[in-house]
Amino acid sequence: MSFRGVFPYLVSPIDASGLVMKGVLTDLVDHLIASGVHGLTPLGSTGEFAYLDQEQRRSVVDTVIAAGRGRVPVLAGVASTSTSDAVAQTEYMVEAGADGILAVLEAYFPVSDEGVEAYFTAIAKAAKGRPVVLYTNPQFQRSDLSLPVIERLSRIDNIRYIKDASTNTGRLLSIIERTQGRMEVFAASAHIPVCVMMIGGVGWMAGPACVVPKQSIALYEAANAGDWARAMELQRPLWRVNEIFAKYSIAACIKTALELQGFAVGAPIQPQLPLAETARAEIADVLRELGAL
Amino acid sequence: MSFRGVFPYLVSPIDASGLVMKGVLTDLVDHLIASGVHGLTPLGSTGEFAYLDQEQRRSVVDTVIAAGRGRVPVLAGVASTSTSDAVAQTEYMVEAGADGILAVLEAYFPVSDEGVEAYFTAIAKAAKGRPVVLYTNPQFQRSDLSLPVIERLSRIDNIRYIKDASTNTGRLLSIIERTQGRMEVFAASAHIPVCVMMIGGVGWMAGPACVVPKQSIALYEAANAGDWARAMELQRPLWRVNEIFAKYSIAACIKTALELQGFAVGAPIQPQLPLAETARAEIADVLRELGAL
Amino acid sequence: MSFRGVFPYLVSPIDASGLVMKGVLTDLVDHLIASGVHGLTPLGSTGEFAYLDQEQRRSVVDTVIAAGRGRVPVLAGVASTSTSDAVAQTEYMVEAGADGILAVLEAYFPVSDEGVEAYFTAIAKAAKGRPVVLYTNPQFQRSDLSLPVIERLSRIDNIRYIKDASTNTGRLLSIIERTQGRMEVFAASAHIPVCVMMIGGVGWMAGPACVVPKQSIALYEAANAGDWARAMELQRPLWRVNEIFAKYSIAACIKTALELQGFAVGAPIQPQLPLAETARAEIADVLRELGAL
Amino acid sequence: MSFRGVFPYLVSPIDASGLVMKGVLTDLVDHLIASGVHGLTPLGSTGEFAYLDQEQRRSVVDTVIAAGRGRVPVLAGVASTSTSDAVAQTEYMVEAGADGILAVLEAYFPVSDEGVEAYFTAIAKAAKGRPVVLYTNPQFQRSDLSLPVIERLSRIDNIRYIKDASTNTGRLLSIIERTQGRMEVFAASAHIPVCVMMIGGVGWMAGPACVVPKQSIALYEAANAGDWARAMELQRPLWRVNEIFAKYSIAACIKTALELQGFAVGAPIQPQLPLAETARAEIADVLRELGAL
Repeated sequence: MSFRGVFPYLVSPIDASGLVMKGVLTDLVDHLIASGVHGLTPLGSTGEFAYLDQEQRRSVVDTVIAAGRGRVPVLAGVASTSTSDAVAQTEYMVEAGADGILAVLEAYFPVSDEGVEAYFTAIAKAAKGRPVVLYTNPQFQRSDLSLPVIERLSRIDNIRYIKDASTNTGRLLSIIERTQGRMEVFAASAHIPVCVMMIGGVGWMAGPACVVPKQSIALYEAANAGDWARAMELQRPLWRVNEIFAKYSIAACIKTALELQGFAVGAPIQPQLPLAETARAEIADVLRELGAL
Repeated sequence: MSFRGVFPYLVSPIDASGLVMKGVLTDLVDHLIASGVHGLTPLGSTGEFAYLDQEQRRSVVDTVIAAGRGRVPVLAGVASTSTSDAVAQTEYMVEAGADGILAVLEAYFPVSDEGVEAYFTAIAKAAKGRPVVLYTNPQFQRSDLSLPVIERLSRIDNIRYIKDASTNTGRLLSIIERTQGRMEVFAASAHIPVCVMMIGGVGWMAGPACVVPKQSIALYEAANAGDWARAMELQRPLWRVNEIFAKYSIAACIKTALELQGFAVGAPIQPQLPLAETARAEIADVLRELGAL
Repeated sequence: MSFRGVFPYLVSPIDASGLVMKGVLTDLVDHLIASGVHGLTPLGSTGEFAYLDQEQRRSVVDTVIAAGRGRVPVLAGVASTSTSDAVAQTEYMVEAGADGILAVLEAYFPVSDEGVEAYFTAIAKAAKGRPVVLYTNPQFQRSDLSLPVIERLSRIDNIRYIKDASTNTGRLLSIIERTQGRMEVFAASAHIPVCVMMIGGVGWMAGPACVVPKQSIALYEAANAGDWARAMELQRPLWRVNEIFAKYSIAACIKTALELQGFAVGAPIQPQLPLAETARAEIADVLRELGAL
Repeated sequence: MSFRGVFPYLVSPIDASGLVMKGVLTDLVDHLIASGVHGLTPLGSTGEFAYLDQEQRRSVVDTVIAAGRGRVPVLAGVASTSTSDAVAQTEYMVEAGADGILAVLEAYFPVSDEGVEAYFTAIAKAAKGRPVVLYTNPQFQRSDLSLPVIERLSRIDNIRYIKDASTNTGRLLSIIERTQGRMEVFAASAHIPVCVMMIGGVGWMAGPACVVPKQSIALYEAANAGDWARAMELQRPLWRVNEIFAKYSIAACIKTALELQGFAVGAPIQPQLPLAETARAEIADVLRELGAL
């Protein structure tokens, strides 16, 4: 199985008693698949994985897999500070029917390159052949993947993708050049998708694609067809979505946008706070300009 | 109940199957109480709280409370990214018999001052009158407590202590001056205990006290008696312990030291790696010089 | 006058007595112009402006202007912590015949947005109509330009360009979108030139262009012609030059490369150290692969 | 010659035409000596060395030496990115009659430990036997001194002091323990003077001493006499001065305070801005409480 294209990071709608709101999550999955997304990624940053306990995480992924009905691949997020916990999460996700794993190393104390490598290697093994996407986000996670570690991990059969959410686009080109086709690159919302496609990326995994799926797919298709002029024409207005997600807290922002679009996904998990009215108005403006409201 | 003195941060000994090794943890508790410590703090940074799941956390605290048999107060660590999870943890710890709560805010996305305040206020309420110690460690946690937030939290009845593990000792004096007795300060291993006592601190909560409890208590007593010359005489050699814990990863370091002292607490939780032989030798040297080996 | 294309950041060759080595600098200028560069930029980061006194800075610019004989525009670097000193530098450069100013704000204490704006506004006025390029390099300079300040500065007639040496390519798109043609963007060596051209950049100002001028120009021309496939084909091998300059200290690296190419520009200014033999060998390899040695 | 006690960092009063205002600087020197300070330090951070050109720096030091008339030692600041420039500055200061050198390494590109050591060694040699104080301020300078480098530099005969303006007081104890009397420690305004004296420091060099000299000396004398209770009693209200200097830009803050006290030292050098009225009122309040207004 090969992954390419637009993979929205899904939000995790949680009600006041801590339960996953399966109805609205199912509706969102249906809507995104109908919009043409190439896959779905529950439990990314935007999915607030860092705020969910084990049961909530499992419930989110189970719901997405059930709602997807195999129409597009589901890449389930796995994130932990502990290798054994990450392995247990991976085993659950594979058993539940995930098509691939999005793997995150959380850290509290600094981790050596050797420890980082062992962590992702253990996840890859537990994934039993399913593709693994490395996900590094130095802004929020207390660890990062060095180029030598990425290069070594690229030699493990099913570690085949990386999503790097640093803002450093040049680093993506360094990864592509070093791994010679063994590791494909997905853009994060901190990168300009057109640029990542230009240097050889295969798509993007990001929260904003949840609220502008059609526009994201049109952009992907233009870039994929090598129609760069058209791609940039689509990219310019879309960049405002990325800007606004960098301005406000990501999860709060996407949840607000989805609420505006009629998906009652609720507020971000406390102590995160809902966005203020001015922020809501600004997000509404951006969506309206893009025809997404 | 009022807390003062030396409160070791306990390690969390976990076996290969993920179970808490209750025997050695009980032995350590007995040893520390026999050495004269004023209290015990399971699930601090050194206790690898960030690497433990809910069951392991509960088991560590249950074991410490059972082993302590009420001889000294037990302050149980509570740490989460989510307010509701922190409240649930607190309720469990109180029910289990903890004498106080050591409260940590973990973060993934940045949290506003308002959110930080709401988080700790919720823990304080759930603690049902038991004292709460705020614990902030900007080096490892992705959040910090601003002075205005600390000042506001000091007005909540049972938020009565703070352990600030920044290296900035001046900040402790600012906290003491601003809270006018409503918030007592404990030193972390990043501060010089004598200095913190001098400016009005009431003791320290730190991993190193696990391996040099008698020396820590002698230092505390000299400082508490205002015998500063004697306190500095004891402080100078002891500082090497703090230096070595800053040099190596804290949990790995304390576990190594305890192993050298005959407590079979095992290795740090993976992907953390055990220390190399040279580090073990260096730690052994430091302990030997202090008469702790 | 309008600037576009490849503007190498020149090195500053200084002999043991502190004098500018005019001969080799003149040779380098001739070589670069013969190679087709679109302009020359003395006193950028690679030009070690931060290590030169007033006389040395003036001598470097005077030499470059004299050597250039008006064949290509010369953008002279101006950098200071102090507004009045920056104005005096600008006046000298204009008088000396510079075609434009590359303006840097150095900082010791943090500077407010209002202060940043006043600083660059004063330089723009002193430049008497000559174009000003804002240069921000948050990695080495202790200041940065916020988007609102950039937007306001773009409304000053002769502030018409920005070179942003953050690694954050998305920020360049935000600048382009916000300034609506009033501010053109040059890439730094921390960005992928093809990506910057794709989003609307007009070229790049960077040290590496000093050692691979022909290859840089071929890349620029392909991108400028919209031949993105060709541009990426040229970009891939060229990226290794940028990687190596990020790996080693920039000035030491460019000076080493030029020495290897036969330009006796000497060592970086002390306490910077010349590169070790292994680094020299690695640089030589990169240059050889690119046909630049 | 041996240095101990309170050494105010002097401001650099500069008029609109860029000239040093010798009258007010002389008055300030007289006032501080009359207040009992143990030495004077022109061209520290508070002296805005980073904003002054060569002539201004020389003029400040010449004025201070002339005004001091040998009554107390004058430690002249030397700061550069370049070894040869630092040596030239040192030679000038020695020739002008400075009793010692306060040495700062500015940096643009990162400097290796070897380069750092060579830089300070060259200054020490140029100081011709006069004592050198290393000054490191990681908050504003783009370099820092590692413990191994400090240890090595302590073996050079006339490098005998260090002023470390990190907020990390524990680091000072590490320096004291490692250098075994070869390197004496002065506190910066980021440390609590009483704490630094307690661990073996010999005084402090800091901007605030300019505006509260008598209070600083009383505190020093109590600490020096080992009367720690009295020292802390004096320290508590004085800490507000340090807090306010951390809150506002240091040079602006000291200049404002001196203006309030009747020394017409003018505004900070542009693009630094004068403090707003609310800040002036807050500073006035602090001074008034301390009897310094």
